[in-house]
Formats: sequence, C-alpha cells, structure tokens
Amino acid sequence: MSLDQLTLKPHDQLARALAPELDRVNTLIRTRMASESAPRIPEVTAHLIEAGGKRLRPMLTLASARLCGYAGEHHIRLAATVEFIHTATLLHDDVVDGSAQRRGRPTANLLWDNKSSVLVGDYLFARAFQLMVECDSLRVLDILSNAAATIAEGEVLQLTTVRNLATDEATYERVIRGKTAALFSAATEAGAVIAGAPEPQADALRRYGDALGMGFQIVDDFLDYGGAGTGIGKNLGDDFREGKPTLPLIRAVACADAEERAFWERVIERRDQRPGDLEHAMALMARHGALDGVRKSALDWVATARAALGVLPDTDLRTMLDELAGYVVARVT
Amino acid sequence: MSLDQLTLKPHDQLARALAPELDRVNTLIRTRMASESAPRIPEVTAHLIEAGGKRLRPMLTLASARLCGYAGEHHIRLAATVEFIHTATLLHDDVVDGSAQRRGRPTANLLWDNKSSVLVGDYLFARAFQLMVECDSLRVLDILSNAAATIAEGEVLQLTTVRNLATDEATYERVIRGKTAALFSAATEAGAVIAGAPEPQADALRRYGDALGMGFQIVDDFLDYGGAGTGIGKNLGDDFREGKPTLPLIRAVACADAEERAFWERVIERRDQRPGDLEHAMALMARHGALDGVRKSALDWVATARAALGVLPDTDLRTMLDELAGYVVARVT
Repeated sequence: MSLDQLTLKPHDQLARALAPELDRVNTLIRTRMASESAPRIPEVTAHLIEAGGKRLRPMLTLASARLCGYAGEHHIRLAATVEFIHTATLLHDDVVDGSAQRRGRPTANLLWDNKSSVLVGDYLFARAFQLMVECDSLRVLDILSNAAATIAEGEVLQLTTVRNLATDEATYERVIRGKTAALFSAATEAGAVIAGAPEPQADALRRYGDALGMGFQIVDDFLDYGGAGTGIGKNLGDDFREGKPTLPLIRAVACADAEERAFWERVIERRDQRPGDLEHAMALMARHGALDGVRKSALDWVATARAALGVLPDTDLRTMLDELAGYVVARVT
Repeated sequence: MSLDQLTLKPHDQLARALAPELDRVNTLIRTRMASESAPRIPEVTAHLIEAGGKRLRPMLTLASARLCGYAGEHHIRLAATVEFIHTATLLHDDVVDGSAQRRGRPTANLLWDNKSSVLVGDYLFARAFQLMVECDSLRVLDILSNAAATIAEGEVLQLTTVRNLATDEATYERVIRGKTAALFSAATEAGAVIAGAPEPQADALRRYGDALGMGFQIVDDFLDYGGAGTGIGKNLGDDFREGKPTLPLIRAVACADAEERAFWERVIERRDQRPGDLEHAMALMARHGALDGVRKSALDWVATARAALGVLPDTDLRTMLDELAGYVVARVT
C-alpha cells in the first residue's frame, strides 16, 4: 500500500480502487435516470445524484462482487440499483420530514414541489427494479425486494415512534435497520450473490453490511447529541427538536427518575421545548452514562462487521472494507 | 349463460366466475399488507383496500391466466401484486393531488397524514415486488417493472402538463397510458405469461389490456365534461378546475380562434376562472365537435380491445372480457 493510500480516508481508498467500475456506474445512472418524455425527472434526479453523495452503497456492491472474484458485468447494474433505491428514499424522506436542505443544497421538495419528489422517487424505484431484473438472478431480486420492504416498514414504524417515549431498543433497531442497515446489507449480499460466491462468503458480506449500517446509524444518532462541529451537515439537536426517540434518548429515559420523566414527557411527548432544554437533555444523558453506552453499542456493531470479514480472501479490498468499518466509529472515539 | 348472468354487469359476471380465486387473492392481500412491527401500515391500507374497489385489475390477471389454461397458483400472487401496485399509486396520487375523497370516503392523507400515505405507498410497492419475485418468472418481472416505470413516468409527465395549453395528443396518450393502461396491460399480459401462453395469445392479452385501459381513461376524461350525474363519484369539471389538459380540452383548443384561445389561456394557463367558465368551455367543446370526437376515440380503443381477443379460445371468460370492454363505453353511448 502506497503512502498516498495510507493518507486517504477509507471510502476514498475504495473509490480509487474501484474507479473504473464506479465511472461505469455513474454513466449507467445518468443514462437510466433520463426520461425523454418527462424532462422534470432528470432535473430533479440530477440535482440530488450529482450533488456529491459518496456513492458508499454502490461501492459496497462493487467491492463485494470483486472480493468474491466476480468477472462479469451485472455488479455495475446492481450498484446503480442500490444508488437509485437510496436516492428514491432520500426524495421521499425529505417530503416526509419537510426538509429544506440535503448535502448542503436546497432539497428537491423545496426547489420543485412535494409532488415532484414523491413521483420522481417512484420513478427511480421503478428504474431500480428494471435494472435488477436485467441481472437475471431471482435470488438477487429476492434480496433487494426484501430490503425494499424492510426499508419502507422501518420508515412507517419511525413515523409512529415520534414523540413516543414508550419506544424501546428493539423498536429502535427495527427503525434503523430499515433506515440504513437493510440497504447496506442488500448491497453487499447482492454483490456476493451475483458473483456466485459460496454461501459462507455471501452470508459474511450480508452480516458485514448489516452491522456496518447499524453502527453507522447509531453513530449518526449519537452525533445529534454529541457531535457539534463535526462537519457532517447534521445540526446538533435535530432529533431532539423533532421528538425522535433515538438510542441516546431511549437509554436516558430508561434511567429517568420521576422528575426527569416529567421533563422528557414535556419536551418529547408534548414537544413543549424551551431554551436550555437541549442542554439539559444532554446533561441527563451524560449523568446516566447514556452517551458512553451508545458509543459502546456502535463499537460493538463495528466489531461485528469487522469479524464477519474473516472468511473472505485477505486482499487490499478486504482491508479497505475493514478500515471503512473502523472509520465509521472514528467519528465518536 | 343464465338469465341472472345476463342481468349482471360484466365486472360482476367476472367476479362471480372468478369468485373462488378472487377470495384467495383477497386473503393474500390481507395477509401481505399486515406488518407486525408497524401497525399503521394495515390501518392505512385496510382503509383503502377494504373500501370496495372493484378489483378490476386482479380480475384481469385471473381471467387472462385462466383463458390461457393456467392450472397453477402464481396467478393469485400476480393478481394481489397488481392490486398492491394500484393501491400504492392511489395513495401517492391522493398526496400529489391533495385529494380529500376517494371511493366516497375521506382519503388516507386526510385521515392520517401525507407522510403515512407516501411511506405506506412505498411499503405496498415493496410488498408487490416481493410477491412477484415469488412467482419465479423473470419475464413477468420484466413486464411489471416496465409497467412501474411507465406509470411513474406518466405521473411526472402529467405534473408538467398541468396548465400547459401546448400539451398535444401524443403527450396526453403517454400520460393516460401511465395513469391507467400500463397496469391494465401488465395485468393481462402477466396472467398470460405465467400461464405459459403462446406468444400470440400473450401479445393479444397485452393489447387488450392496453386498449381497454386507454378507452377507460378517455371515457373518464370525457365524463368530466359530459357525465353529470352518472354516479361514478367524479364531479363535473374537476379536470377543468385543476387546469389538466385532457382530450376534450386538447381537441377544443386545437380548433380555437383568437378569442377562444384567449379564453383558454385565461382559464387554463392563468387558472383565472369565473362563474360560467365551465359552461362556456363545454359550449366551445360542443361547437367544435370535440366531445363527439373524444367519444369516437374511446369507441375506437374499445374496438381494438375487442378485436385483440379474437385469437383466444372462445369461452365464457372471453365473452365476459369482450363485454367488459363494451361496458366501458356504454357510459358514453
């Protein structure tokens, strides 16, 4: 490994190692998001797809297929598929959350309207579906259709947890599996399966993707209470203001005495929030060791992800996936 | 054919002929729309699915499979699939249109919220996708994924035609193919393909479904200007008030002189509408024979649909499909 590679972040290393394939994924994305008859579609989609997401999910598919020795073409289609599914969920999420910014730019629902975001999201989902059908693998279709259902179910479940202090950790896990881990694990498993990998390798990559996604989302939720100024574009206290019960909150509420419980009921259930409430919430989380516990949970998931890689060939790509997992928790350690 | 059958409407005849299979479709729909972890999902879905839609699309799939001699089980899954796709598009349409009523009941977006409608629609689409994967037919998946893309593309295209007097007939056809005909033709073709029908039969059923859907939608758009009191739950002038360029309007605008053109620009492009404008619009359509021409177009599509059935076995089911097509235009003749 060169000095240059050592100083690159893991996802940049992956992007470099996979550059020729990633270029082809990007070309395919641009071709397939076009619509001759409805020019609104590429306008909306380009706004989001060209905005410089990291292409993390497509890279997971490409890397998994390569790690399993794939020499075909379908992994390019599957990588574009997972990026389309991801983009479709972002468009719908921004409508659901009424978001005004995404990746540092105004959201599509703000620039055009909610209608366009809903319908263009549907279009991208249909395009994703066409692309995966072209891969001629019923098993891959099974993986991705199950992921799509888990994602949608998690999103609806999240709706019903908002302002609900009774939300437990099992429910939280289902929500974040849908929100993040389901597509990560489908991306890695589909890459392995299209490569015809033996079952232990496909299963290992599925578990890697799942644990990576779980760790990634828990870190994200941690940073909402402890990550001021990390430059990830998320504002401290967003989840708090929206009354979303994430892991730090769930853990703090579980330890609450009567007075603290009354505080949580006011700020989360009734969403009656006043200046200083976020700081008080963070102080309560610190008092009960909730943030430390959440950090520990993220580290555990990442350890699970790294351990899963053990059955795969010991190559540079495997090292990069391992370091990618480590990098996820570097933000909180 | 019994006297009783003769007095039943064609879709009721179909429902009777297909009753045991339709029962199994309904059971499958109820099973698959459930979600243990997110109870909001069956609430929203049941509201719409139990509201008494005619199950026209699932019946088209069942009838097509049976007409082609199918003796397996997958047509039940495909019938549920098309109903899920249909329901998902209704949920998203009601958000996009801001509708308050559907099938005589308040819409889901009104009873719950737009968020639930968007996300539960996504969930149903994912469930549809899972169901069709279970049918183990890449060709069926190809048909349905293409239909999903055509539907979404048509919906986005429709957005950009609103208040746009330059909308031509070719664009209108793309819009209504997406809105209605694409799912009709996918429903019939998928039924034939899962039955292993010879290509001419599968193609005939695809063309039947497409032409039936086109005729059906053109009649619907006709009735918006000429169908007061037909009890179909659509109010006279809805499309006019929303500035949607449907076929009667497109044809009238094509014949407009300067003064009429100014009228259309005011009421459609600027949507500056005053009392009496709808009546004046209808008078202009009558003056140019636009409504008669639209009726003629609907009849042509229905004739195409009926003609397509010629290559299929001459059975009671074929007669019912033929009469169903006739019934579509009975509303305007």
